[in-house]
Amino acid sequence: MAMYLAEFLGTMILILLGDGVVANVSLKGTKAEGSGWIVVATGWGLAVAMAAYITGWVSGAHINPALTIGFAVIGKISWSLVPGYIISQVLGAMVGAILVFVSFRNHFTKTDDPDTKLGVFCTAPAIRNYKWNAITEVIGTALLVIGILGINNGNNGVGVLSALLAGFLVWSIGLSLGGPTGYAINPARDLGPRIAHAILPIEGKRDSDWGYGIIPVVAPIVGGIIGAVVYQAILSVWV
Amino acid sequence: MAMYLAEFLGTMILILLGDGVVANVSLKGTKAEGSGWIVVATGWGLAVAMAAYITGWVSGAHINPALTIGFAVIGKISWSLVPGYIISQVLGAMVGAILVFVSFRNHFTKTDDPDTKLGVFCTAPAIRNYKWNAITEVIGTALLVIGILGINNGNNGVGVLSALLAGFLVWSIGLSLGGPTGYAINPARDLGPRIAHAILPIEGKRDSDWGYGIIPVVAPIVGGIIGAVVYQAILSVWV
Amino acid sequence: MAMYLAEFLGTMILILLGDGVVANVSLKGTKAEGSGWIVVATGWGLAVAMAAYITGWVSGAHINPALTIGFAVIGKISWSLVPGYIISQVLGAMVGAILVFVSFRNHFTKTDDPDTKLGVFCTAPAIRNYKWNAITEVIGTALLVIGILGINNGNNGVGVLSALLAGFLVWSIGLSLGGPTGYAINPARDLGPRIAHAILPIEGKRDSDWGYGIIPVVAPIVGGIIGAVVYQAILSVWV
Amino acid sequence: MAMYLAEFLGTMILILLGDGVVANVSLKGTKAEGSGWIVVATGWGLAVAMAAYITGWVSGAHINPALTIGFAVIGKISWSLVPGYIISQVLGAMVGAILVFVSFRNHFTKTDDPDTKLGVFCTAPAIRNYKWNAITEVIGTALLVIGILGINNGNNGVGVLSALLAGFLVWSIGLSLGGPTGYAINPARDLGPRIAHAILPIEGKRDSDWGYGIIPVVAPIVGGIIGAVVYQAILSVWV
Repeated sequence: MAMYLAEFLGTMILILLGDGVVANVSLKGTKAEGSGWIVVATGWGLAVAMAAYITGWVSGAHINPALTIGFAVIGKISWSLVPGYIISQVLGAMVGAILVFVSFRNHFTKTDDPDTKLGVFCTAPAIRNYKWNAITEVIGTALLVIGILGINNGNNGVGVLSALLAGFLVWSIGLSLGGPTGYAINPARDLGPRIAHAILPIEGKRDSDWGYGIIPVVAPIVGGIIGAVVYQAILSVWV
Repeated sequence: MAMYLAEFLGTMILILLGDGVVANVSLKGTKAEGSGWIVVATGWGLAVAMAAYITGWVSGAHINPALTIGFAVIGKISWSLVPGYIISQVLGAMVGAILVFVSFRNHFTKTDDPDTKLGVFCTAPAIRNYKWNAITEVIGTALLVIGILGINNGNNGVGVLSALLAGFLVWSIGLSLGGPTGYAINPARDLGPRIAHAILPIEGKRDSDWGYGIIPVVAPIVGGIIGAVVYQAILSVWV
Repeated sequence: MAMYLAEFLGTMILILLGDGVVANVSLKGTKAEGSGWIVVATGWGLAVAMAAYITGWVSGAHINPALTIGFAVIGKISWSLVPGYIISQVLGAMVGAILVFVSFRNHFTKTDDPDTKLGVFCTAPAIRNYKWNAITEVIGTALLVIGILGINNGNNGVGVLSALLAGFLVWSIGLSLGGPTGYAINPARDLGPRIAHAILPIEGKRDSDWGYGIIPVVAPIVGGIIGAVVYQAILSVWV
Repeated sequence: MAMYLAEFLGTMILILLGDGVVANVSLKGTKAEGSGWIVVATGWGLAVAMAAYITGWVSGAHINPALTIGFAVIGKISWSLVPGYIISQVLGAMVGAILVFVSFRNHFTKTDDPDTKLGVFCTAPAIRNYKWNAITEVIGTALLVIGILGINNGNNGVGVLSALLAGFLVWSIGLSLGGPTGYAINPARDLGPRIAHAILPIEGKRDSDWGYGIIPVVAPIVGGIIGAVVYQAILSVWV
């Protein structure tokens, strides 16, 4: 129960700060409007670090079903915890997105473009091509999981830096690989806010683009499993 | 006495660096003019970290009445210290703002727009709507207090990283949630410099916008109390 | 074998994230297009840190033949390991570049300029002048090697921060000295992706500019040796 | 002797990376041209951190006569070391500036504006007003010295983070207070490169602006002494 609450709260904070930075940069009339990719990527990276420091000591702060499933595949977490973790993550992401909507209420009203409003909640590809979009998400998430496993390898002894380095890893992935798809690399990060978009009374909103919505759910899970399995194989050579 | 001096000095440094970065980015003719939100948010985040490293070992470096009151509500600081802490914070913020005025003397003279000059001292909403502005400040400050409590949870053992992570938390909140109101999230940060603006001989200054000034005092206190109480409730599930 | 795999994987990650950030900023239509030097330099710095955390505990994460050769010259690594290290680094860089091509597939198609496409893979000078370009690379790489040796000096005891500080060193070199040549400062970083560019089926690609390609291979090796030897000489005064 | 070599090398690296970032952002045709204040301030901050990690274990990495004199005034360093420290710092800064000139050789040739070329070496005020420029430098340097003393206070125990936090302090001062004068806050940082500018064969260079050159030498020393004395006075209340 404590762990599920931690995953819920961690993912809520992740999305409040993560979707928050997208709102801050893209909605009309905020003081940060148009401040660009450095703000977006730094904001998401810090969002991960903050969520992980606040909740990681309770549940490990997966705050990402791709990580949870990848860890389960290689036996780092019991499969019995997986459903509860994922449900908590998706619900936390929904609530985080609702808090972003509330925090930027005036700016949603002022913003006309429905794509921009949807883009605060969930990812959309820069160039829509499901196959290549999915591949980009698979690569990004595989790198995320390899990175988390590699950084936290017992021989490193990163200790209290673990959460910060997880944030820097996501900062890095965002800066470097985030441009084609907006780097969901996390099914809950995309699905929870997309549901929130569907149910919230947002003026002039468009549909929630469920056609694309399958990609940032499935591709990160595939990538997470690949990353976890590849790292295990590498580790068998290393130790 | 030592603690009050630390809160005074810490808040003075916070505002010297924090209002300083706003002056640097927004006043006419500085070398950093127009350098944008990444500079503003990074500057405020580092301002918190620096103030906390210099003074935190003496007083805990609240440098924020919302934190002090929130901590008092949940029993982490004695109520008897609260008045002295708050007075020290507001006075420190005033002196910090005066030092910013002195540091940027030539650029205040060169800047015509009175809103820009006021904006160096205290916050103003991007879209004026007291109810939603207050809600944004409540959410931001609640997250700040939950974050400070969560990061410094004994199970984390962040030790000497505490001040840096407090700075990164404010960096994150600024990047992500700062655009609608300029993220006071700290009554002293807004009130002290607003008083300084009212009394300083600034050429061509406007009134100090006391109509809005109540929001960044009251809303952060409400948010701080909510954050502290919510975190205590969460903690009762976690431990 | 484990060490070679680590150098391969580390350099692959370095280039996936490093060439990735160049692709993200320079290719047409990504969400990060045109986001500038702060993104490029921060991206490369974090790429180094991430690669070093994931693989450094196995092989030391040289991920750079100039470092490997410099270390061999001053006896910090056995010459017998050098060929395997370098081959692993170049192969890792090739695979990293291929993953970037795959991750940004749609955006390579959308980008017309063949120089931009080549620039994702390998470096090109801002002003072509082989002598001065080489000198810039020598200075940058000498500083890199002096920095790595100085930061990791036993008297510092940086411990788990070593990989992060290596990343910050490259962040710093990129911000400060990267503009004239694009700071290869690493023969594998340039050669591996240049080979990948030559063999990949990239629409509308230009030749791989092998005329310049010799500079970012030879100059960093010269710089690495100079840096290692100079630091040893300094150290003989210091200790 | 070892300490003087460390101060020489540390200040050389400081200026190679610090003047380097100004060259990178301001000279014509570099890949980082026009990338703005976030690059400049981050570059200088990292330059301090790198110089301090490489040389701090030998000499304390003052790399700044204002710090050395301030420390001597409060008895943290022997006055007998002060002349050697300062001479090493100024010479190191000169050599660092020469290396910047060499690294950006092609771009000095391509840049027409003589003020821009001088601006790579030494500081110039945004608005020329010697009195207020001096006050800005005094405040910035006093904050620098208070910050160094406060961060490294024994009760903090920052240990291996000391050099990083010194860099973050300068990052912060640059972001927040650097715009009016270009934040010399260090006599060697300004004087050494100004001498280098005077003697180097730079095409189309202007005079070295010795009229202003007195300000960034004297004002930081005044500020450093004030900072050291004020911190000692504060400390007598604190402990």
